[in-house]
Amino acid sequence: MKATGIIVEYNPFHNGHLYHAEQARKKSGADVVIAVMSGQFLQRGEPAFADKWTRCEMALQNGVDVVIELPYVYATGQASDFAKGAIHLLEAIGSESFCFGSEQGAIEPFLNSYALLTAHRAEYERLIHEAIQTGISYPKALNNAYKALTGSDAGFADLSQPNNILGYHYIEAAKNNRFAIRPLTIQRIAANYHDPVNKDLTIASATGIRKAFFEEGSLEELSRFMPAASIHSLVSFHELHGRFGSWELFYPKLRTIILRERPESLKRFAEVTEGIENLIFEAAKKEAYFEPFIARIKSKRFTRTRVQRMLTHIYTGFTWEQLRSFEKPAYLRLLGMTETGRHYLHAQKKNIELPLVSRAADLNDAMGGLDIHASYMYLSGMGISDLQKEYSTPPFYLASKPAK
Amino acid sequence: MKATGIIVEYNPFHNGHLYHAEQARKKSGADVVIAVMSGQFLQRGEPAFADKWTRCEMALQNGVDVVIELPYVYATGQASDFAKGAIHLLEAIGSESFCFGSEQGAIEPFLNSYALLTAHRAEYERLIHEAIQTGISYPKALNNAYKALTGSDAGFADLSQPNNILGYHYIEAAKNNRFAIRPLTIQRIAANYHDPVNKDLTIASATGIRKAFFEEGSLEELSRFMPAASIHSLVSFHELHGRFGSWELFYPKLRTIILRERPESLKRFAEVTEGIENLIFEAAKKEAYFEPFIARIKSKRFTRTRVQRMLTHIYTGFTWEQLRSFEKPAYLRLLGMTETGRHYLHAQKKNIELPLVSRAADLNDAMGGLDIHASYMYLSGMGISDLQKEYSTPPFYLASKPAK
Repeated sequence: MKATGIIVEYNPFHNGHLYHAEQARKKSGADVVIAVMSGQFLQRGEPAFADKWTRCEMALQNGVDVVIELPYVYATGQASDFAKGAIHLLEAIGSESFCFGSEQGAIEPFLNSYALLTAHRAEYERLIHEAIQTGISYPKALNNAYKALTGSDAGFADLSQPNNILGYHYIEAAKNNRFAIRPLTIQRIAANYHDPVNKDLTIASATGIRKAFFEEGSLEELSRFMPAASIHSLVSFHELHGRFGSWELFYPKLRTIILRERPESLKRFAEVTEGIENLIFEAAKKEAYFEPFIARIKSKRFTRTRVQRMLTHIYTGFTWEQLRSFEKPAYLRLLGMTETGRHYLHAQKKNIELPLVSRAADLNDAMGGLDIHASYMYLSGMGISDLQKEYSTPPFYLASKPAK
Repeated sequence: MKATGIIVEYNPFHNGHLYHAEQARKKSGADVVIAVMSGQFLQRGEPAFADKWTRCEMALQNGVDVVIELPYVYATGQASDFAKGAIHLLEAIGSESFCFGSEQGAIEPFLNSYALLTAHRAEYERLIHEAIQTGISYPKALNNAYKALTGSDAGFADLSQPNNILGYHYIEAAKNNRFAIRPLTIQRIAANYHDPVNKDLTIASATGIRKAFFEEGSLEELSRFMPAASIHSLVSFHELHGRFGSWELFYPKLRTIILRERPESLKRFAEVTEGIENLIFEAAKKEAYFEPFIARIKSKRFTRTRVQRMLTHIYTGFTWEQLRSFEKPAYLRLLGMTETGRHYLHAQKKNIELPLVSRAADLNDAMGGLDIHASYMYLSGMGISDLQKEYSTPPFYLASKPAK
C-alpha cells in the first residue's frame, strides 16, 4: 500500500480541505492519505476552534485515513519548525510523498528556489539581515531578500504567498534531511486566508468560516462551505461544551497569567523577544478583551501571528529553555484512523521508524509530556471539567466511510 | 487627640462591625478610631467580596475615622503574622490602644495566658509538636497543648474560640515588641463565624451575609443586618462590576494557573507544604468548580482556611522566598479618612513613625510592590478592565458623617 501525507490544521474542516485530500490521493496515486495535524494549539498561535479529537473525526469522515498529532513544539512553531516536525513524521510513517496546496500550483519552481537559496545561503542571509535593520517585518525581509536574488526570473516560486512559503519550508525540511519522501503540490482553489465568506462560492477560508460562525451564530448557513459530517461534528462539540475555542474566550485567563508574571519573567517564554515584555504587560493591565489587547502589541515588526505565538507560549508556560531542548520527534501519536488507515499501519508496522503511540500514558519523553500539558491548558481554557479526557480518549476508529 | 485601633476585614461591613467600632471608641475613650484593614485578599485565604476601596468607604460611613491597608504579606498570613503586621501599624500610627472583639470579653485572661505561655515556652512547643505527630490539625494541636498547660484554671483565656485566638496573637505581638499600645477587648455579640443569617437577630456573620446574598440574590433582605450606607456601597459595586469576589468566580483562572505550573513547581509558593502539591494538581485536573476542587484537598490536617491561603499564594504567584524576605512593614498606606481622621493625622504628623502613603506610586519597596501586584491579580480575577485604578484611586475622604 502506498501513502501520501498532508499537513493540516482543520480549524475547522471545510470544502477546500476536502478538495486537498482528494487531490493529494489522485496526484500521488496513493491508497492512503495520512494527515499530520496540529493538536490543541495552532501555527498562527491560537487555541483551536474545536479540540483535536473533533477535528480528527472531521478528517476521517472526509477522505483522510490516518491522523497523527503534530507535537506542540512544532505545531506552534515558526513556519520552518512547523515544517520540519511535520515532514519528519511523514517520512517516519513511510509516506511515499507529501502534497501541499500552493498558490504556485507546480513543484518545479519550489525545487528551483531551494537550489538557488542553498547555493547562495550567505548572500541571502546578509540581505535578510540588512532588510531587518530597516525595521520591516521578518516575513517581508525574507521576501525582499528573495526578490533581490531571483530578480524577474519566472522559474522560481513566488514566496510572497503564504502557502508557497509553507510549501517551500516543507521542501527544505525534506531536502535538508535527505528524506526519500517526494514533494507534490496542487493549485489552491480556496479563498485567500483572510477572505470573508462569499456565499456565491463553495469554498471559504477557515478564518472566514470561524468569523462567520461567531458573527452569525449559526453553522447551518455554512453548509455550502463545509461537508455535512464536518458541520455535525462541530455542532456536537458546541452542544457538549457550549463554546468554541478562541483567544477571546481564553483571554481572561491569559491576562491573569501575564499579570501574575512580572515583565522581567515574561522574557523566559519561547518567542518572547527582548523588549516586548513590557508592552505585553502594560497592554494586559489596560485591556479586559483580547482585540484591544493585541492591538496594543502588534506592529509591522511584530506581526499578529508572531505575537499570538508568544502569547500561546506564555499561556502554556513554555520557555525558551524548553524550546531549545528539543531536536526531533521521537513518537507518532495516533489520533485516529479509518479501516484503510488501519490496514496500512498494520502492513507497514515494521517499516515505521518511530513508536506509534495510541494512548497518552505511553508518551514517556519530555516532548510527549508537553503535548499532554498543552492539552490540559487547552481543556482548562475551554472550561472543560474532566482533563482525564487526554488520557482516556482512544484513537478514533472509522470502520467504513459513510455514504456522501 | 487620642486614637484607638481596630483590626478588620469588613467582608462586608455589617451591624456587628458597627457595634465593634462604637464600643472601641467608648471603651478606649478615644476621639479617633483607626482601622487596619486587609486589602484585596483576606486572612482566610480568599479574594474579598468587594474591593478595598468599597470596603473602606463602608468603614468611613459607619464610625471609622482612618483606614490603613494591611499589606498582602500580613493580610493573607497565619493568625500570628496577621496580628504582627496589624499591631505594628497601629503602634506606628500612634494609637494609644487597640480593641478587639472576643468571646472572652475581658482582657485579664489574655494577659494571664500570655504570661503563662511566655514562662513555659519550651514545654508548650513540645506539647504542640507531640500533638501534631498524632495527625490532628495545627489549631487543634495548639489548643490541646494549651489545655494541658492551663488545666481547669478559669483565669486564662479560652483559646479554642476563633476570636480569642486572634486576640491572643494581638497581645503577643504588642508585648513581644514592648509596644506602648494598650490592649482592650469587648464581648463579641455577633453570630458565630459560620452561622447562617437568622432573621430574628440584627447581627449576622459576614460569612452568613455573603452566603445569603449569593443564594437569595438580593441585598435588600439583608438590611436588618447591615447599615444602609453599607448596602448602598455594595449595590454600587455590583452595579459597576456585575459581580462580587469569591473563589467560585476566580477558580477558572486559578485552575489554569495550577495546571500551568507543574506539581514540582507548586511547592515554590508560600504555605504550600511538601506533599500537598500533587493533591492540588490532581484536584485541578478533575474539577471545573471550586467547591468540589477544595473538597478533594482539605482534611483534618490541612484545614479549608489553610488550603485557601496556599491557593491565594499560588494564584498571586507569591513564593516562600518572598514570604521569608519580609521583616516588618515600612509604610502606612492610607485608604481613606473622615474629617476627624484628617485632623488626627495632621496633628500627629511628627509622631507617626512610618511614611504615610496616599498613592500607589509612592510605594517604593518590595512589600508595597507586592500590594500593587496583589491588587492587579484581584482586579484581573474580577474581570475589571482598568487596573490603573490601583494607581489612580485617591484616598477616600468623607467631609462629614452622614446623618444616621
